Amino acid sequence: MKIGVFDSGIGGLTVVKSLLEHKLFEEIVYFGDTARVPYGVKDKNTIIRYAIEAVEFFKNFELDLIIVACNTVSAYALDEMRESASCPVFGVVEAGILATANAVEGKDAKVLILGTKATVNSKAYEIGLRALGYENLQAKATGLFVPMVEEEIYEGEILQATLRHYFSTLDKPNALILGCTHFPLISEALQEYFGSECKLIHSGDAIVEYLEKEFTFTHKYPNTELKFFASENPDALKKIAKKWLNN
Amino acid sequence: MKIGVFDSGIGGLTVVKSLLEHKLFEEIVYFGDTARVPYGVKDKNTIIRYAIEAVEFFKNFELDLIIVACNTVSAYALDEMRESASCPVFGVVEAGILATANAVEGKDAKVLILGTKATVNSKAYEIGLRALGYENLQAKATGLFVPMVEEEIYEGEILQATLRHYFSTLDKPNALILGCTHFPLISEALQEYFGSECKLIHSGDAIVEYLEKEFTFTHKYPNTELKFFASENPDALKKIAKKWLNN
Repeated sequence: MKIGVFDSGIGGLTVVKSLLEHKLFEEIVYFGDTARVPYGVKDKNTIIRYAIEAVEFFKNFELDLIIVACNTVSAYALDEMRESASCPVFGVVEAGILATANAVEGKDAKVLILGTKATVNSKAYEIGLRALGYENLQAKATGLFVPMVEEEIYEGEILQATLRHYFSTLDKPNALILGCTHFPLISEALQEYFGSECKLIHSGDAIVEYLEKEFTFTHKYPNTELKFFASENPDALKKIAKKWLNN
Repeated sequence: MKIGVFDSGIGGLTVVKSLLEHKLFEEIVYFGDTARVPYGVKDKNTIIRYAIEAVEFFKNFELDLIIVACNTVSAYALDEMRESASCPVFGVVEAGILATANAVEGKDAKVLILGTKATVNSKAYEIGLRALGYENLQAKATGLFVPMVEEEIYEGEILQATLRHYFSTLDKPNALILGCTHFPLISEALQEYFGSECKLIHSGDAIVEYLEKEFTFTHKYPNTELKFFASENPDALKKIAKKWLNN
């Protein structure tokens, strides 16, 4: 299978990392809209417009599947992308909802959803989790995490102060949805803050779990062909891909 | 005089505030490219492209002058904007350089330049200050300040930890250039950190000082007509303008 992975920037590489670890695909075409990142502070209509442009870009390749690695796009533009695309389109939000349900025991589990402002405002995770019977939900827009990760702050006093700033008044959850592809990079600090009992839901692992249910994968691809595209500074994207994916 | 003020987002309203305080203009047309903010992490060619589009937008009005409130655009795209525009174009970087020279005593003054990654990489402030004979220059990209200001963090432990993170290894400067329109909103914390002897250079005040040298203003306009435009969510921009400018 040849698949496309779309993200607003570089964050979706954490999803590619999960896909590579499970050796599911023959070829992955990654497109990061680095010229217009971040989407998480943008309006719904703008996000939809950009997402449809990404679908058009992917039409240059004969893809069997498009994965939307960006939580914000998954929350707002999945239907519109499906209308425009000529192949199936899967998003990390649907996958994350199902992974959360698999990870916790009982419908009274406390779930804390983290994301960009746009993702949290969409209430996409809450709508899905409520439909599955979960009611004990909290969501928090944690806008400072993305710029921190981009400055390679994964620990230390700024991050600790920010964790207290966002979470000191919230109940400790049973599951924490890392609703933004940048957040796995601070998962250690989050796990430590919320305790080892708290299940962290990672978009990359969630989408693998989801795809393995949707499709029958009969073959493993140890050497997936990777093609990286960026709307700006593709060299920077390739450099980060090399570092994060060791490829 | 009718003028245009261009910024990548809402930050340029701090410049409009200075212009209004000095009652220099009959009409101000503000354009914030809120759909594509932030520019500070983008490439030179992208910034130039967006800046030229802003010039085209301003051609819908008969303007006497365009002020570029965004430091990143001023650093990278001023020449290209001047080529495209049918009126003079002034930028806050030139203004800030001259304001710094006026604020400090002696060419051996220590100047610390703060800005986005793009502004700092451009070395625009250093080039101008060196041309005036200043050699004791340091520059620091402080990318976390913009998202903090946008989350209305103007004080407290996150900001204090971030100040230490960026500045603990640097010499205390005689002048500090607030090379991003968001930074005046944390000027109190910066002034306290660097001490009351340190001169803070504010883009809005600098551009007023600059314009008052370039033009003879014979009339005061206590009721400047304000027109606000945004490439996304103009209502949000107008709401913030109301709050910041009390208009």
